[in-house]
Formats: sequence, C-alpha cells, structure tokens
Amino acid sequence: MKIATCDTTAPNPVAMEGAEGITKRVMIGPDDGAPNFTMRVFDVEPGGHTPHHSHESEHEVYVIGGRGVVLEGDREHPIEAGSFVFVPPHEVHQFRAAEDEALRFICIVPKQYD
Amino acid sequence: MKIATCDTTAPNPVAMEGAEGITKRVMIGPDDGAPNFTMRVFDVEPGGHTPHHSHESEHEVYVIGGRGVVLEGDREHPIEAGSFVFVPPHEVHQFRAAEDEALRFICIVPKQYD
Repeated sequence: MKIATCDTTAPNPVAMEGAEGITKRVMIGPDDGAPNFTMRVFDVEPGGHTPHHSHESEHEVYVIGGRGVVLEGDREHPIEAGSFVFVPPHEVHQFRAAEDEALRFICIVPKQYD
Repeated sequence: MKIATCDTTAPNPVAMEGAEGITKRVMIGPDDGAPNFTMRVFDVEPGGHTPHHSHESEHEVYVIGGRGVVLEGDREHPIEAGSFVFVPPHEVHQFRAAEDEALRFICIVPKQYD
C-alpha cells in the first residue's frame, strides 16, 4: 500500500509542446506496482494550459482545486473544484486555467500513455 | 466528452457483504464509453466502512473530503481530504470513516471489476 499527498511528492515541469505553466506529479504509477493505469496530478498556473491536441488514450479527470475551462474541440466548458471530465480517445481537448486563478486536476491514463 | 459533478449524479446504496453506511456513484465508466477503467465515488457515513477484504484488482484512490482510516491488513493509516492511496492487487484492505465525520473518496478500478 502507498499513501501520499501532493505536499510530500515533488512536482516536475512539463516541457511538452503546446503546454505552458504546468507541473506534474505521478501520484500512483508503475514505480508503485500499479499494473494498469497511472494517476497524475497537474498544476496549471493562472493563464497556463495543456496542449490543444488529441491522442489514442482516454483521460479520466477530477478537478481538485481552482478554476478554468476544458476545450472539447474548440468549445469551452467551465470547470472548477469538484468537476469530473471524461475525454474519450481521439477527441481534441485542452485544459486551461483561468487568467486569475490556478487549476489543479487529477488525470488518469493507461500506463503505456504516461 | 462528459462533464459531471457529484451533485448532478444520483448515488446508489452499496449492499455488498461487509459494507456499512455506503453509497456509490459511477462518475466515468463503460456507459460513457470509457474503454479501460471506471471512476467511482464512495460516500461513507460516520462510523461506516467498506468490506475488509482482498481481490484481484488494484484500487487507485483519492480522498475528496472528510476523515477516516485505511486498513493495510490490520494496520490503520489515517486519511483525509488530499490523501492518495494505492491498494495493490490481493492486498487485504478496508476504508473506514471517522466515528464523527463522513468520508468521500474516488476509487478507480479496471472496468471488469466494477
């Protein structure tokens, strides 16, 4: 069993093309013996965002804190602490923090896509 | 894309043997087209608990709110809002709410085990 919090887990900057103002923590993953999927936490600075892209894998997301939008293609949906978001495989999407508030969310993917 | 909150998703009682004072919401699952794993939310009443058991599948857990303990075998670990817990396959475990406070947590499993 592993028990952890964001406070006890160091974040790493995300240098992916199209990403801005983002850090990532792997909270549960292959290093912990997780056999199937990886639970990551992303912190997005005010005005920051993930890439506007699509890929083979799905995302299962829970917003821990803050405020922002998720783009479904080019359509914006507001999200905040307590929002759950499912992004199906191959759907174009982007997570954006509000201009004046950071966004923290959990994003789970099959382990081969982390 | 699906966007939801616990407030807009009806809970169902959990009648599983060994469970007490628990409701469950499937926030993201096969009905939404999720191909691999299912994201559920469990609410445990003060003094309530999940079964003390083990099984083939892993759990990836995030505590949304409240306070309680997770049992690793017979050893208690305190958990609260912000705790992440990984329960490996075949490990005996149990989630218990505090006697005076409810517990709400996300628990993700491979879809064939929901």
